Amino acid sequence: MTRLDRQFDFLLEIDKEKAVTRQNYIPSGNRHETDSDHAWHLAVMTLLLGEYSNQPIDLLRTVSMVLIHDLVEIDAGDTFAYDEKAAVGQHERESAAADRIFGLLPEDQAAKLRGLWEEFEARETPEAKFARTMDRIQPILLNDATDGRAWKEHGVRLKQVLMRNADTGEGSEALWDYARERYVLPNAEKGNLIRDIGDIRDIGDDKDNS
Amino acid sequence: MTRLDRQFDFLLEIDKEKAVTRQNYIPSGNRHETDSDHAWHLAVMTLLLGEYSNQPIDLLRTVSMVLIHDLVEIDAGDTFAYDEKAAVGQHERESAAADRIFGLLPEDQAAKLRGLWEEFEARETPEAKFARTMDRIQPILLNDATDGRAWKEHGVRLKQVLMRNADTGEGSEALWDYARERYVLPNAEKGNLIRDIGDIRDIGDDKDNS
Repeated sequence: MTRLDRQFDFLLEIDKEKAVTRQNYIPSGNRHETDSDHAWHLAVMTLLLGEYSNQPIDLLRTVSMVLIHDLVEIDAGDTFAYDEKAAVGQHERESAAADRIFGLLPEDQAAKLRGLWEEFEARETPEAKFARTMDRIQPILLNDATDGRAWKEHGVRLKQVLMRNADTGEGSEALWDYARERYVLPNAEKGNLIRDIGDIRDIGDDKDNS
Repeated sequence: MTRLDRQFDFLLEIDKEKAVTRQNYIPSGNRHETDSDHAWHLAVMTLLLGEYSNQPIDLLRTVSMVLIHDLVEIDAGDTFAYDEKAAVGQHERESAAADRIFGLLPEDQAAKLRGLWEEFEARETPEAKFARTMDRIQPILLNDATDGRAWKEHGVRLKQVLMRNADTGEGSEALWDYARERYVLPNAEKGNLIRDIGDIRDIGDDKDNS
């Protein structure tokens, strides 16, 4: 096989990302979002919102990361954010998927993409932190625009969203503050996210501090 | 409206790209490809195949271009490559769409994205030529992987594909040669693309020259 054969075989294989569905819905149609929809959306978001990163980031590196961050789900499937049972063994499944899928590429490119994916997972570099912020905020935008449809279907609590996003501000404080105020808290007020005792006071506190 | 309000309003508006369907099918599912699927695929292709560009290209600029090149279709719709009637007025429709859609953004970003889209359309810079090569080769890959399904449905002729791709080599000779030999010509041999008298000799010539 030539270098081009391997590259094109990989490019055909990743077409399968278009068939991996996520739990959230798209506002523009009565269907679940796919991983390809999601990755494209994150990439455009990164181009436009990179200016709000807490630390300077290399945009090409960050865009590359969000474009490939879910390829492992071709084999491992999408794990819903609030499904603790499904999360068991997720890392092992995804690591095996990375071996197989990135392994289709010529060695140098396999190592590069695998490295980007591991960097994303480790959330240590400014690029990985910002990519994670994109990955967390985008479904919140879509949930808000569909009147909390996926949140309501799964009975998601405000507390869960706030806990899951405890580190979302590490990529961009400005963007997490904005998303929380414009999208998360109003959905708790509308009842699209379930509130627990004490949440109302928490919401009040958040507003005072912003 | 704040800068962030405009950016997030734009990011929600472009969700509609996920609902614009193209004529070709995805190999990974029994459905048409969407513009978001397509843009994502082109972006990953650009990252991996940029090394074959005839001229050096700025990867971030090229990836940005392919990510946003079809946003105008949110208003103007997808025009099938081989539908001459639908192509009438296409440029005017797309230009009005660009005014509206990019106009949602803060002025500096609106100008930047509009500029990228116009650069893509003009096909003059190395980045635009390479982006066009990606845009042309990707549906050929998918058509080949679906046994020429969209080509057969529309009765597409080999001659039309070769004419449409007369300038595809301007972005990358190596990639167009590869795509023609691995994907286009075999589909003519299988009857998935209609051959006219003389085509068989043309195929022979192409092979001699490659």
